[in-house]
Amino acid sequence: MTTDQAEQLVLTERRGAVLLLTMNRPARLNAWTDALEDQYFDVLESADRDADVRAIVVTGAGRGFCAGADMDDLAGASSASDAEIDRPRPRHLPMTVRKPLIAAVNGAAAGLGFVEALYCDVRFASAEAVFLTAFVRRGLAAEYGVSWLLPRIVGHSRALDLLLSGRRVGGEEAYRMGLVDHLVPAETLVDDAVAYAADLAEGCSPWSMATIKRQVALDGERGFDASVADADTLMRASFRGVDIAEGVASFTQRRPPAFAPLFSHP
Amino acid sequence: MTTDQAEQLVLTERRGAVLLLTMNRPARLNAWTDALEDQYFDVLESADRDADVRAIVVTGAGRGFCAGADMDDLAGASSASDAEIDRPRPRHLPMTVRKPLIAAVNGAAAGLGFVEALYCDVRFASAEAVFLTAFVRRGLAAEYGVSWLLPRIVGHSRALDLLLSGRRVGGEEAYRMGLVDHLVPAETLVDDAVAYAADLAEGCSPWSMATIKRQVALDGERGFDASVADADTLMRASFRGVDIAEGVASFTQRRPPAFAPLFSHP
Amino acid sequence: MTTDQAEQLVLTERRGAVLLLTMNRPARLNAWTDALEDQYFDVLESADRDADVRAIVVTGAGRGFCAGADMDDLAGASSASDAEIDRPRPRHLPMTVRKPLIAAVNGAAAGLGFVEALYCDVRFASAEAVFLTAFVRRGLAAEYGVSWLLPRIVGHSRALDLLLSGRRVGGEEAYRMGLVDHLVPAETLVDDAVAYAADLAEGCSPWSMATIKRQVALDGERGFDASVADADTLMRASFRGVDIAEGVASFTQRRPPAFAPLFSHP
Repeated sequence: MTTDQAEQLVLTERRGAVLLLTMNRPARLNAWTDALEDQYFDVLESADRDADVRAIVVTGAGRGFCAGADMDDLAGASSASDAEIDRPRPRHLPMTVRKPLIAAVNGAAAGLGFVEALYCDVRFASAEAVFLTAFVRRGLAAEYGVSWLLPRIVGHSRALDLLLSGRRVGGEEAYRMGLVDHLVPAETLVDDAVAYAADLAEGCSPWSMATIKRQVALDGERGFDASVADADTLMRASFRGVDIAEGVASFTQRRPPAFAPLFSHP
Repeated sequence: MTTDQAEQLVLTERRGAVLLLTMNRPARLNAWTDALEDQYFDVLESADRDADVRAIVVTGAGRGFCAGADMDDLAGASSASDAEIDRPRPRHLPMTVRKPLIAAVNGAAAGLGFVEALYCDVRFASAEAVFLTAFVRRGLAAEYGVSWLLPRIVGHSRALDLLLSGRRVGGEEAYRMGLVDHLVPAETLVDDAVAYAADLAEGCSPWSMATIKRQVALDGERGFDASVADADTLMRASFRGVDIAEGVASFTQRRPPAFAPLFSHP
Repeated sequence: MTTDQAEQLVLTERRGAVLLLTMNRPARLNAWTDALEDQYFDVLESADRDADVRAIVVTGAGRGFCAGADMDDLAGASSASDAEIDRPRPRHLPMTVRKPLIAAVNGAAAGLGFVEALYCDVRFASAEAVFLTAFVRRGLAAEYGVSWLLPRIVGHSRALDLLLSGRRVGGEEAYRMGLVDHLVPAETLVDDAVAYAADLAEGCSPWSMATIKRQVALDGERGFDASVADADTLMRASFRGVDIAEGVASFTQRRPPAFAPLFSHP
């Protein structure tokens, strides 16, 4: 934890039960550094434990989302020791947060910035967004699991297209290929993503969201029968929980549900 | 088998070699009950054995496709014993039918109704169709393998979008994201699905269709080399079968093929 | 190697670091024969070893891309012995080439021709392209791993639609479903595919492209953690290589990179 306390590299703002995070190195298109990573991951771990936070939105300050590893860091990479490369927490920590993580991609998401966008569960973007994997143009491999995630999001062939060419993909093409789930105007991007997150925070069971996020992650690497067996176990658990009664009652009474926070649930 | 014999919960109609099934609880948007399941599964098992049925179309009576588990059943779920929850046949029985199963989604496909639509091989829908996973808004987990199937149909990210939000997706958006394969006018939905099924019944080898359906299911959980090895074995089997001669002859003679029924094939 | 030396079944043309291959049996819509396969695979193996070739484009002469197994061969299949069916090299040899393989699909890609198009990493097509799996209409199984590859490219449901119906899909629909990555005018199809390949040849590290192609192939059958562990190992290897310095320098100096050929890299 060598974070410079004077420098706030990740801005945080609460909007009801939604936590809005803004990567904040706008002069460098929010390029990734160890210090930014430390702050981002600290905030995510804290949000994971905070019962009042039910959904999270991530965006970038200024013109970029995240331009990837800071080029100054990358220039020194060939002389870095393995100890310097290793980080205390896995880069895919965002995937382990038990709450929905919504990316609001406002500009360039390149290299590691591209990967961080993929680590989010759902992606909003404007037409101004630009996605590029970039690795191939720097002499790098496909880093941090992007060669596993991307084919499962956009299909095997589009993934090879993006990974082998490192070409720039705008928001509209990204939407068309399923890299972006919601294409919205640049002016309302963050508000639209926060509104979506607020709908999840207010209308969806925190236990259900955490459970389903974990099911989808596990189902990426197990067979159908194992998935169904786990789903049956979880269905029985849900029947013993408190959320199902509220879910059915709010539906039949046509009113918003008031689900328990994540931690009160068995 | 406690089905009320007086009540026909699944209507059946033969159109040539196509069997048209209609879930028939229109006053409840065809909400799923144990009795409806029993009738639907009985009909599917019978069709699987019937050499004269070569393809199956499933739709819903009235405004809905299937609104999911009947809310009266769900309201009692928390007091249900495991024995009451367990069913004699697995919920994904439709996936094991050896004949193409075409869904004609005419209205709401919600919760278990959404899953039953996914259990079909191909989906037709009109713009009036509405898909929603719904589980997260009732305090439930992703049930019956939907968290395994949906990412493989629409991609990992769109699946998380639909599962974490439980939001409503219309026919056009469902088509754009690959949840629906054929978007057609509401007035011709059933006829168009039946015409597609009739083309399969008349032009495609029953052995090929059953074999390929099984290959795709197995390939979801095995490696490429294992898939290729199985394909080679099946290719040799096809060379010893009777359909290949008819397939080539009908092609070179530019006439419709007359393939053997499923069961006469080695 | 029974190839008739007088007959050039695969035309080759070098355009800079791009090798353009043209299947050349136009009178038969470039239908696949053992002789064509021998020449095609010979050329690919040679290109894999040739340091001057950095990307490959494959197209068809005349109106077709590849109409699949020659019908004369198929007509004799039922009397063929296993020894005659077996080929010295696996049919998916193109997938093992360590350089990007770009298909320029100019016409019908049917049966084995459909599969050969899938074996390429990226697909360009014009509206005149026609894709059809065809197997089901000849009494065949899904051959050569197509039942594994296709669901990973277009999703499980669209794959079943194409495999169970064997229906014809034009270039535009193929593009919409992700079977084609780049839809371009028929007049510029080959030039556009070559320009894309030239951009990869000139701007992308051969080591990165070979490495990433292998990562994506392996990631189709391993878990996320194994993928990330491999990516970390490869990242460290890239830091010890020569391409990263050139990749960063060319980026900061805003000039095209001059990456080492594949074989000089550790």
